[in-house]
Amino acid sequence: MNVSMLSTPVLLLDETRLASNLARVRAAVAAHAGVQLRAHLKTVKSIEIAERILRAAGGAAVSTLREAEYFLAGGVTNLLYAVSITPDKFARVGDLVAAGANMTVVLDDMEIADSVARWFTAARKHIHVLMEIDCDGHRCGVDPESSELISIARVLDRASGVDLAGVMTHAGASYECKTIPDIIAMAERERSCAVRAARRIRDAGIACANVSIGSTPTILLARTLDGVTEARVGVAFFNDLTMVGLGVCAAQDIALSVLATVIGHQVNRQQLIVDAGWTALSSDRGHASQRVFEGYGVVADSQGRVVGDLGVVATNQEHGIIASASGVALEFERFPIGSRVRILPNHACATAAAFAEYHVHGSDGRILTRWQRCSGW
Amino acid sequence: MNVSMLSTPVLLLDETRLASNLARVRAAVAAHAGVQLRAHLKTVKSIEIAERILRAAGGAAVSTLREAEYFLAGGVTNLLYAVSITPDKFARVGDLVAAGANMTVVLDDMEIADSVARWFTAARKHIHVLMEIDCDGHRCGVDPESSELISIARVLDRASGVDLAGVMTHAGASYECKTIPDIIAMAERERSCAVRAARRIRDAGIACANVSIGSTPTILLARTLDGVTEARVGVAFFNDLTMVGLGVCAAQDIALSVLATVIGHQVNRQQLIVDAGWTALSSDRGHASQRVFEGYGVVADSQGRVVGDLGVVATNQEHGIIASASGVALEFERFPIGSRVRILPNHACATAAAFAEYHVHGSDGRILTRWQRCSGW
Repeated sequence: MNVSMLSTPVLLLDETRLASNLARVRAAVAAHAGVQLRAHLKTVKSIEIAERILRAAGGAAVSTLREAEYFLAGGVTNLLYAVSITPDKFARVGDLVAAGANMTVVLDDMEIADSVARWFTAARKHIHVLMEIDCDGHRCGVDPESSELISIARVLDRASGVDLAGVMTHAGASYECKTIPDIIAMAERERSCAVRAARRIRDAGIACANVSIGSTPTILLARTLDGVTEARVGVAFFNDLTMVGLGVCAAQDIALSVLATVIGHQVNRQQLIVDAGWTALSSDRGHASQRVFEGYGVVADSQGRVVGDLGVVATNQEHGIIASASGVALEFERFPIGSRVRILPNHACATAAAFAEYHVHGSDGRILTRWQRCSGW
Repeated sequence: MNVSMLSTPVLLLDETRLASNLARVRAAVAAHAGVQLRAHLKTVKSIEIAERILRAAGGAAVSTLREAEYFLAGGVTNLLYAVSITPDKFARVGDLVAAGANMTVVLDDMEIADSVARWFTAARKHIHVLMEIDCDGHRCGVDPESSELISIARVLDRASGVDLAGVMTHAGASYECKTIPDIIAMAERERSCAVRAARRIRDAGIACANVSIGSTPTILLARTLDGVTEARVGVAFFNDLTMVGLGVCAAQDIALSVLATVIGHQVNRQQLIVDAGWTALSSDRGHASQRVFEGYGVVADSQGRVVGDLGVVATNQEHGIIASASGVALEFERFPIGSRVRILPNHACATAAAFAEYHVHGSDGRILTRWQRCSGW
């Protein structure tokens, strides 16, 4: 069966591009002695893809407990739940430990550290804790220079049921960078903040073995990861237009696309209408800094080759509106009603999350297999 | 069980608000003699909600064939598939007819009209066709003044297997209106375009019984629907911040919310972090014209009452960042880590699409039941 025979909209995954993205991630991490890959599976959410990735990784990160449960059921035991833990989620984490997971949780708050220490010690469910460090003002984490860093570390160090495994940080602000040197500088900031926090904890006489950092742009472009033990990436396995816009990859490295059918011509307005709206492409308009296209995706032909500067300029629930970014006249005869296009995603995680499965194809467009995704919380 | 005991993020549906929204839609349509409600089920995607709505409706509209199959299985037979039909979808529509659906499809293209006429006549699967009219340059449809309108009507009129049921239009541009008088003017434009197209078809000696129009803002605010036979609304059953921004409803009319847990405090940046990111809230930033809040949702307390001017200012996959729109100091003690907030959605269709089910609650917060949603295509 060929891609062109599928019912649309449908999510396609190019196996050749996936394999080459994976090879690139492996090589990028292998270039840094002493650093292991921790694959963030929030992007792929599929055990079949995870199995390929984890052959070269030290462990996995997940963004929901549902993912942790799904991947554990698939045999992935080394799991980092990379979103701040709260007491309402302790019982589920405890159940994961009881079911055989080697669980790591993250936190950045004194009261939560205290609750974690008490609950997991009382429950006799051993877990590892990474303290989250704020390296860029992006989201979560404690200041690496704060007194809180040491006081939280001390609470965790004293608890018998938990192991202060180390520190982690995420340079989410790398997505806002404008140039490659900016990303390289952000990677150094991410590294040095995490290493600094670990050193302060060790200087206080507390063990802090692991230093975990990562975002796709920073890990792929970092010049040095000295002092880092673990690098996390997620989007890098698929790539997307945000990564193209950042200069981290090229459009032909994007492994994911949405196959859509042309359902209308608006000749007066020079627009094509397709049957992929925001339910299929996601409402993610990409980053403000995105240099490629300010819309909901870039249009490729049925073989995945980008077509001029066509993009999805607007979406409704089940309609996508395609036009030329620069106003070039559309060749309607190239896109008859009923013909197919492929739309490259702004944000691979968000577009993939719109679908229950991947249709995996070779570079010749032949459908090789289907892989399910997990969803929900 | 109470709302506060649920695992987060979770989608809540306030049954009292749903009932009052439904009553408002019924009254708005009943005010126009000769007009029947056609409920667009793309927003609710639940048979339990559809059953309540359809007690007062002439039929249903759907945005995917998956919805059509799901609602037909639930006993809803009068179905309008409201997205331009293409040949790749004929067989599924034919199967719906064979399974007992009274199916209507829409089209706006001569070649497709010809294909529909041939295929359904040959397959002996009787369907109804509404020709889509472009009333606002928003998306699909033929110009009501064009010669194409008549030539397409003639092709459909001559085919024995299809019934030209009438015309339909959708004033999608009503979402961009800035004032109530603008919406009222848009409603009149939607009405008059559809009525004019129907009159031209009738003047050409072709039967054109139905005139179907609709968007939530225009139907709720239209002064007259003279000549219209059918009014379509979808969002009106739930309401959302876009509707509040348009002045179509108040925040307390929004029946949908996402319950989230506070997972972090960033005191220096005056931000709360919650466990609802774009996977739960959708990436829909609302409309540019939205007057309420330029973010990903407005924050209410665990009882659903809006809290000051707090909103979700940024989202990552599983993190939402909450801050005051005007920079008012946050009362962190009101939102301890582990406490709950409810987030009102920018766009009800998109937020609901992020979840597999509704947790339905009464005005006292008691969970009454759970209703599943259909998804995919």
